Amino acid sequence: MSRSSPSLVPPFTTVAWSPDRRSVRLLDQRLLPESEHYFDVRAVHEIVHAIRTLAVRGAPAIGVAAALGLVVALEHALESHPYGRSPREPLALLAAALENARPTAVNLRWALQRQLAVAASVSDEQLLSALRTEATLILNQDRAMCDAIGQAGAPLIRAGSNLLTHCNAGALATVGIGTALAPMYVAHARQVPFRVYADETRPLLQGARLTAWELHRAGIDVTVLPDSAAASLLRSGEIHAIFVGADRIAANGDVANKIGTYPLALAARTHGVPFHVCAPWSTFDPATARGEDIHIELRERDELAMAGDRTVLPMHVAVHNPAFDVTPRELVTSYITDRGIVQPPFH
Amino acid sequence: MSRSSPSLVPPFTTVAWSPDRRSVRLLDQRLLPESEHYFDVRAVHEIVHAIRTLAVRGAPAIGVAAALGLVVALEHALESHPYGRSPREPLALLAAALENARPTAVNLRWALQRQLAVAASVSDEQLLSALRTEATLILNQDRAMCDAIGQAGAPLIRAGSNLLTHCNAGALATVGIGTALAPMYVAHARQVPFRVYADETRPLLQGARLTAWELHRAGIDVTVLPDSAAASLLRSGEIHAIFVGADRIAANGDVANKIGTYPLALAARTHGVPFHVCAPWSTFDPATARGEDIHIELRERDELAMAGDRTVLPMHVAVHNPAFDVTPRELVTSYITDRGIVQPPFH
Repeated sequence: MSRSSPSLVPPFTTVAWSPDRRSVRLLDQRLLPESEHYFDVRAVHEIVHAIRTLAVRGAPAIGVAAALGLVVALEHALESHPYGRSPREPLALLAAALENARPTAVNLRWALQRQLAVAASVSDEQLLSALRTEATLILNQDRAMCDAIGQAGAPLIRAGSNLLTHCNAGALATVGIGTALAPMYVAHARQVPFRVYADETRPLLQGARLTAWELHRAGIDVTVLPDSAAASLLRSGEIHAIFVGADRIAANGDVANKIGTYPLALAARTHGVPFHVCAPWSTFDPATARGEDIHIELRERDELAMAGDRTVLPMHVAVHNPAFDVTPRELVTSYITDRGIVQPPFH
Repeated sequence: MSRSSPSLVPPFTTVAWSPDRRSVRLLDQRLLPESEHYFDVRAVHEIVHAIRTLAVRGAPAIGVAAALGLVVALEHALESHPYGRSPREPLALLAAALENARPTAVNLRWALQRQLAVAASVSDEQLLSALRTEATLILNQDRAMCDAIGQAGAPLIRAGSNLLTHCNAGALATVGIGTALAPMYVAHARQVPFRVYADETRPLLQGARLTAWELHRAGIDVTVLPDSAAASLLRSGEIHAIFVGADRIAANGDVANKIGTYPLALAARTHGVPFHVCAPWSTFDPATARGEDIHIELRERDELAMAGDRTVLPMHVAVHNPAFDVTPRELVTSYITDRGIVQPPFH
């Protein structure tokens, strides 16, 4: 373990200060994989719009974007109305606006609450500078979290092995090297040769659009397959380990993650392939006893009804489009975290 | 069992004689689900193009289209060159052209060989009329095959149950009521209430585009889900039985079918849900000992790279896109055929 080594940095930046530090610079993930475009946001409505329309996505990256965004939006608001008003009033309004950008995003709320706690402890004169320092700290901590997961998981990747992943729990979802993909970036930096198979991940195709894009961009050999082709690939013996992320992990070890994680874990068990879940410690939720207690969000019909400009679903036909499924703890080989590899009970 | 009862006819016709019987009328499946459009083909290049571009698809329907197509194409050719030439020469050429429309389609070859055998047994004067009679017989036998599968499987559908299917082994793939969907059409005609969940079936979305269209068109309650959402639905206890088709069944009972059938069968076994394979007797291949002996076709990158007009895969990223997978016999509850419900060894 070398947690104090310099962070591995992916060859793109999801969220950063702009060079003059007066804006937040975002990679526009709405345009991937067709184009790699960066843009700066400053006014609060610009930041909210970027979060809401998924220009920035992935719980860790959203939290960082909100932390930095609060700083530049506050500075912008104070400059726009520089008439001696207390900075406390716009601060509260801006934080509320940012929090509503994605109401269910836990990291978004967490990052803003951290900023508001800092604000409560400093004078008006120190406010902007203290918030800026805290935002940079949140960003650096996210990067360090990714590094720690990568360091913990990399030894599980043997030279010459074929790995499989689902959805995107990669650098594009964080400001560092991701969670499920972090062990791969660390192994790649250590010049361990391996190949990755990425489930395309219906319905939003994050595996094809995002995971394949970032791994290929980093020079890692990646092949995309339909989600339904993973089981026969596992049966063929071609895959040596699976790495996935997690949206929430219950106290008993049950894992809520992108729909399709559970059938992958079932096939992995059937064919004796290790199934690793990679997540920051903050994903472990002691308040949730078991997977059955996790509410599964049902998403929109249009995600299945349209393919680009084409209608692929007949009118009036309903859809069942759950965002997540639950993988029971029995099917998980390792929980790879920023505190090392752990097993339930977690404490 | 009432195999002699009149055929159930779906509320659309995939392949039929045109009203003047001088053309073949096809439902243009390339336009589904957005529009239900029929068109007539007569010249051999029109028929070949329709088969090649999937205006008509599904092994049984392709066989029927070729059998009827040979008749109208021959009549057309003889009328175009009515100068005393023997009909044997154009017949051989037309049969060869049709056979090449989809080189791997077994039913296509089978139907044409049946027609050529009839041709060999009659005089030049009787030729067209004998071929027309045989084509109608092939069409009616396909319809009877579907009926027989439906009659055999319908008793497995209990009132109030939820069924699940994958891909399209329905009326659109035959000239009757399909194979995997045949038991559903028979149960529906008997006023047994049930609901169907249809896997959308990546990459070509036959479940969304075709199965949902035809079941909805017939007044059967259908809901579409991503392939990767089936396992958690089975886990929830919502599904009471699964019906799928088959592309080939080995002598030991292993089933080659659309990619995604195998993970579905794995999840069905885990959750104790009956898994029924529906197929005509002609799908059982005594020359193939086991599933491992079945060659799996790998299909094109573009099927995963494009979504309508959108590029969803980064340039230079490879794909693994197998057309089929193999489900081992242990995971199959029943083989529902036009000779009733059978178990291996088949003979």
